[in-house]
Amino acid sequence: MTGLFERHRPTLTAAIEAAAKRDFWTVYPEVPSGKIYGETAKDDGLAAYRARLDAEFDLADHPAEGRVGAEVSPYGPALGITYPAASADMLVMASRAAAPQWAAASPDVRAGICLEILARLNARSFEMANAVMHTTGQAFAMAFQAGGPHAQDRGLEAVAYAYAEMTRIPAQATWTKPQGKGAPIVMEKHWRIVPRGVSLVIGCNTFPTWNSYPGLFASLATGNTVIVKPHPAAILPLAITVEIARQVLVEEGFAADIVLLAADAPGAEITRELVQHPAVAIVDYTGSNAFGAWVRENAGNADVYTEEAGVNSIVIGATDDFAGMCGNIAFSLSLYSGQMCTAPQDIFVPRDGIETNEGHKSFDAVAAGIAAAVDSLLVDPARAAGICGAIANPATLARIATSRPLGRIVRDSAPVEGLDGARTATPLILAVDAADTDAYAEERFGPIAFVVAVDDAADGVDRAAALAERKGAITAALYATDEAQILAAADRFAVAGVNLSVNLTGGIYVNQSAAFSDFHVTGANPAGNASLTDAAFVANRFRVVMWRRPAAA
Amino acid sequence: MTGLFERHRPTLTAAIEAAAKRDFWTVYPEVPSGKIYGETAKDDGLAAYRARLDAEFDLADHPAEGRVGAEVSPYGPALGITYPAASADMLVMASRAAAPQWAAASPDVRAGICLEILARLNARSFEMANAVMHTTGQAFAMAFQAGGPHAQDRGLEAVAYAYAEMTRIPAQATWTKPQGKGAPIVMEKHWRIVPRGVSLVIGCNTFPTWNSYPGLFASLATGNTVIVKPHPAAILPLAITVEIARQVLVEEGFAADIVLLAADAPGAEITRELVQHPAVAIVDYTGSNAFGAWVRENAGNADVYTEEAGVNSIVIGATDDFAGMCGNIAFSLSLYSGQMCTAPQDIFVPRDGIETNEGHKSFDAVAAGIAAAVDSLLVDPARAAGICGAIANPATLARIATSRPLGRIVRDSAPVEGLDGARTATPLILAVDAADTDAYAEERFGPIAFVVAVDDAADGVDRAAALAERKGAITAALYATDEAQILAAADRFAVAGVNLSVNLTGGIYVNQSAAFSDFHVTGANPAGNASLTDAAFVANRFRVVMWRRPAAA
Repeated sequence: MTGLFERHRPTLTAAIEAAAKRDFWTVYPEVPSGKIYGETAKDDGLAAYRARLDAEFDLADHPAEGRVGAEVSPYGPALGITYPAASADMLVMASRAAAPQWAAASPDVRAGICLEILARLNARSFEMANAVMHTTGQAFAMAFQAGGPHAQDRGLEAVAYAYAEMTRIPAQATWTKPQGKGAPIVMEKHWRIVPRGVSLVIGCNTFPTWNSYPGLFASLATGNTVIVKPHPAAILPLAITVEIARQVLVEEGFAADIVLLAADAPGAEITRELVQHPAVAIVDYTGSNAFGAWVRENAGNADVYTEEAGVNSIVIGATDDFAGMCGNIAFSLSLYSGQMCTAPQDIFVPRDGIETNEGHKSFDAVAAGIAAAVDSLLVDPARAAGICGAIANPATLARIATSRPLGRIVRDSAPVEGLDGARTATPLILAVDAADTDAYAEERFGPIAFVVAVDDAADGVDRAAALAERKGAITAALYATDEAQILAAADRFAVAGVNLSVNLTGGIYVNQSAAFSDFHVTGANPAGNASLTDAAFVANRFRVVMWRRPAAA
Repeated sequence: MTGLFERHRPTLTAAIEAAAKRDFWTVYPEVPSGKIYGETAKDDGLAAYRARLDAEFDLADHPAEGRVGAEVSPYGPALGITYPAASADMLVMASRAAAPQWAAASPDVRAGICLEILARLNARSFEMANAVMHTTGQAFAMAFQAGGPHAQDRGLEAVAYAYAEMTRIPAQATWTKPQGKGAPIVMEKHWRIVPRGVSLVIGCNTFPTWNSYPGLFASLATGNTVIVKPHPAAILPLAITVEIARQVLVEEGFAADIVLLAADAPGAEITRELVQHPAVAIVDYTGSNAFGAWVRENAGNADVYTEEAGVNSIVIGATDDFAGMCGNIAFSLSLYSGQMCTAPQDIFVPRDGIETNEGHKSFDAVAAGIAAAVDSLLVDPARAAGICGAIANPATLARIATSRPLGRIVRDSAPVEGLDGARTATPLILAVDAADTDAYAEERFGPIAFVVAVDDAADGVDRAAALAERKGAITAALYATDEAQILAAADRFAVAGVNLSVNLTGGIYVNQSAAFSDFHVTGANPAGNASLTDAAFVANRFRVVMWRRPAAA
């Protein structure tokens, strides 16, 4: 039973150490290379994906009352896959039936199984890349990284935190209380980890694996059974995940139903029934603020962990690398067409312009510099397709159209050339004034950005931070050359609970969050009520129960 | 600013180590001895308490719109003390005004201040003992221990957990990502701890300090400002606590309002306004299930930690020390007249009796043995007074009267002799059958116990555990001689989330929970939604925010 734990122990130990040090560390290679994953891995993954299409996705022995599935690739074709579907009650009943066995497994056994699931997911990264690409619209390279190794990193991180927290409590101890000149009182004490109950993980459309794995693996490692509820438009990546988890569980002698898939149909979602079910003790949710508020209010006594939406900002005060800055921002705006929870929306620029290594740049020159950098980045259609990918949700395309009148168009959005049949859009960039809060101070999800004229950088920092406090924000960026101004901005964004990136001009982008180093979401503003990647995220997923007795004389 | 931290660092380090080992450890002596606390400490403490009576309790510069106070000692006299009183809004406004300074203090500075507050509380333990005695009804020795050193232990434990969790996150790190043959990407990253907001600690009547210190010190150490809301019948112990905290804060250059007292009048409590205030981010609550449910439902987005009520059970299957067992149970039933959250209420005994070192004992003989042990324990009036103390709430006395008809009286309750003017009662013990759930399966707070006839010990374990799952329980006890039966009971009570004590016959009682070793409350049944003493209790009281930039070349 502990064979898997022994096999993966070095990885777990290294992960725990990495999370404490917070230097770069990974065990799942992010490069989609045949040299790493095997020369046929890419073709095999594509073939495996294609074999899923227009067929029933079979999950052996999974509870089912029917089949659902209506996924359509943002690149065009319908996937034609159906999945076993069951009512919330049926799923919860199956989850509870599997619970005692999983609760009784040791933290070592559970950690071993979690790491084996992750290892197999890693080996299947090319298949997953296709599944993520055709449900989210991410370009292939991003779908591989974010849907595969980077998501696996986050899953491993959750297991590492969970294992570290569980093993802080000794399994047993002797308690010896001195009694003056008399014999001491000696007690033997035994502690065990007990799970909370059924854990519900609600996935999102754009990052079905990356955003679900922290909650999924944190709950699984701590002994809870897990119901994975995918977004109806992005079921396949989580169905593959559940399939692998169930295979490993069964191989190790556990009930497959420890991990269940709650597939449902658009317009007939069972999310509310699951959230309100009294047996659901933990809810992990990624999605809109509106439904997030409903989840937080209706989950009863369940603990709820959310990543919701926000408005991310960049503040430009000065730079000694104007071209690098514009190029870096252009990439952040273009990557996955602004559909990342970490993508910037508002760029605050002093209305009198800024000082740069290229001399003074007016507000308009800064806006034009960013627009030109986007044009340059996306001039080659193949490269543009590889950066922008496709638009997951038709409503996002519609939002671009309704946003155009909100400001002066600095750069217009257009389809990505050469992706026939795909739903695509390059960034729309609008110039507005700080007073135009109706335009820029609402989340406008997708490739929509505002260059906002402010008094000066300090005014920009204040407005960006206040906006984060009101609407939420996961990232912020600052360009400044004055150290005191940088430190003051760090103070202000810390109060607003936003992670800040300063003077990014090279190969790191504000959108990026690295496992084992960057905590994702702070939980300190409306963009989410928890970090997905810290001790607080795992510590409440289990309880500790003791029995004690006088020690034998 | 870090002088206090350096002074108390050895204590903090030892506390963190003790919490990891979970052997016996304490730094605040539990013996009310003049040799430890100073030869005049007892008299000084009494004099300090007496000087409080019939006077205004002055909290320098504390927000106030009037004065309240209507405490009456369970031993008879009114305390005649009034406290500054302010509206919920005024208190929250003052708390928020003090917040930025406290949030900006380092974890070291905050820990040093917390430990200095605890050290001064320890030095004032005799004064506190009188304050606790005359607000709760605890006998002096218990009021000293539970209200003084043991409460301080729990406060220190919270600081230790909080400090350990905060310092797991490095203040800064260098992140170096290899780039194949190219130069690596190097980022400098900085993290800081940010608090959640205003923390509200709602105290109870019976253990005003012991039950409040975990939340108070956990929130304070993690940078939150704290509003302490005492039970209107037990304000003085927390007023003294707040007074000392404010003195230390001011001496160290901080705003006194980082810790506030929310004194209110019976019937005009401001608890609901405080719980529902949007600025309140953390609520710690000790009290009834009914109001606990209201708090959990009405606290909005605040995190809520509760210790509520439950029905604690003892299961008797067999014993090789019948006299020791009866004596141990008698003490648990009598101590503070059953007003501890850890006191047993239901004693499950096989209706065909049990095997003991004194031969077979019938159900009636077991019940009679416990009753006789209570009689023997309380035969001396002075000793009885020292064990039972007085009854905090008149409703508890009334409950004894209404409970008498619920079963066959094995031992009747009576006043404690010699405590003229005090509200006292020795244990009422009733015999019932397992079918009489209307009698024993409800919490009947106070010196009311049921000996419940069951089929056998396994039936008793099942019923006790199921009752814990339904109504909550903080403790359980088992007497058994068969190891397999003991291990099976440990399994069953673990599922029910109850800490179990086995075969207690000597100087340790099921009611007792030792800091740094016993986690208090599991959070895994309706008796409370959290443990008061683990990492999960502190990890969500702060968030982590980062800023990062490319490292200078």
